[in-house]
Amino acid sequence: MTDKPRSHGRLSISASLTPRDLMDAPARLKGAWTAKVVTLFPEAFPGVLGLSLTGKALEEGLWSLETVDLRTFGKGKHKNVDDTPAGGGAGMVLRPDVMGAALDQAQAGTPSDRARWPVIYLSPRGRPFTQETAKRLSQADGVTLICGRFEGLDERVLEEYAVEEVSLGDFVLTGGEIAAQALIDSAVRLIPRVLGNQVSTEDESFSDGLLEHPQYTRPAVWKGRAIPDILLSGHHAKIADWRRAMAERLTKERRPDLWRAYCERHGRDPDGDQEL
Amino acid sequence: MTDKPRSHGRLSISASLTPRDLMDAPARLKGAWTAKVVTLFPEAFPGVLGLSLTGKALEEGLWSLETVDLRTFGKGKHKNVDDTPAGGGAGMVLRPDVMGAALDQAQAGTPSDRARWPVIYLSPRGRPFTQETAKRLSQADGVTLICGRFEGLDERVLEEYAVEEVSLGDFVLTGGEIAAQALIDSAVRLIPRVLGNQVSTEDESFSDGLLEHPQYTRPAVWKGRAIPDILLSGHHAKIADWRRAMAERLTKERRPDLWRAYCERHGRDPDGDQEL
Repeated sequence: MTDKPRSHGRLSISASLTPRDLMDAPARLKGAWTAKVVTLFPEAFPGVLGLSLTGKALEEGLWSLETVDLRTFGKGKHKNVDDTPAGGGAGMVLRPDVMGAALDQAQAGTPSDRARWPVIYLSPRGRPFTQETAKRLSQADGVTLICGRFEGLDERVLEEYAVEEVSLGDFVLTGGEIAAQALIDSAVRLIPRVLGNQVSTEDESFSDGLLEHPQYTRPAVWKGRAIPDILLSGHHAKIADWRRAMAERLTKERRPDLWRAYCERHGRDPDGDQEL
Repeated sequence: MTDKPRSHGRLSISASLTPRDLMDAPARLKGAWTAKVVTLFPEAFPGVLGLSLTGKALEEGLWSLETVDLRTFGKGKHKNVDDTPAGGGAGMVLRPDVMGAALDQAQAGTPSDRARWPVIYLSPRGRPFTQETAKRLSQADGVTLICGRFEGLDERVLEEYAVEEVSLGDFVLTGGEIAAQALIDSAVRLIPRVLGNQVSTEDESFSDGLLEHPQYTRPAVWKGRAIPDILLSGHHAKIADWRRAMAERLTKERRPDLWRAYCERHGRDPDGDQEL
């Protein structure tokens, strides 16, 4: 944490309903990575993303965030965005014409190549989000994220706009907003200069496909619990061995899937005794 | 969405640094499910959780949310909460004495039985969060969530407080706040009366372990794309068959892991042709 006062309001979030005059546009680094979010709850953004390192980077223009308010594209007096499912069933489905109009606006001025600008619908039906996806997103020019809300989305929109479906995990959320924030956070932190020197994106969880070893810091003894002697020995090679052994044990115990993949890469027997 | 004006400020978020006088406490349904969040960024809450159905339920006292500001337990003039890792390495580690003091405050007045009140550290080292975990959390009296921020947490805290480590997925976030919101959202929506009649928690993704079939709604034709005839046929049995076949195809394609489990339960050959 730095004590330096922050500059406020220089660049935060900007609704993009009306085309911006380029001369009036807020300061943004040219070509900065941009997340566009189609949502019924634009006020949910930037949310947590406006705090800490991602918030600082947003203010500094290292990335930018735009929301597209789906409601403004709704039909009729009540600005309806959804309707009952064809073929019957519970719940509601977001209309393709409403979502299509919102996407047309979001995509204006973005490259049509989906590798350069992925369009993602956050849905438990999607392929699981992983660190590889985060890396891919951070290397694109930007991303458009579609947030649903306890509704389905008409399948034709997914086809028409070559939308990729991504799932945060095997659980159900009331809406896509939190999932969108998770995606953005994990991608933004991989953008150069966002993390600064505070953290390396290397030596962290998933190094070599293992879960991270236990960590300790001062005080040396707390509630009768001491830091393991080896960590205070100053013997770097032994410390590295201990950490790897602990990481292996933890991975084997908690994530048999990662453990099997690790053993395969290292020619180890997944059911064998651990080294050390 | 309802047009009824919301009551504001009746119950939203309350910091719990000082013990509350029971007579002054905001309206809360007795025994309402409670999430306590230990974080360096209490202003991140309720965030998205204060909107839509979870926000309405929060105002109505169907659940409650308290934050514990970790910074207030920091050491020295700068209220430091972390220190360098024992044994060396990059990054910082949250001190056990600082986190311990924050947890002591969070846990005051909560049952010590971890089945009734889980204490969870959000970390990529944890066991993956699933809908089963959401269900278990929603059936407890409440939950305490520990949010880290690009630091590790001293292992002794995890042992001393019987902390469960839970991972949102195989990706890295700048902090635990977004993951905490995802956990809370998925648990809160399972609390009776939160979703009301708007959605059933049944007929949704993961029914019978399959991904959800495609959905369609009005208009019948959009950009030259028509709703599949069968969905407009009114033939309920055929519609159900079609939906299951589509759900199976999607699951096989995107989630081989779920597909294998489904086939095993149904005595099907995972590599065989699909029914229908």
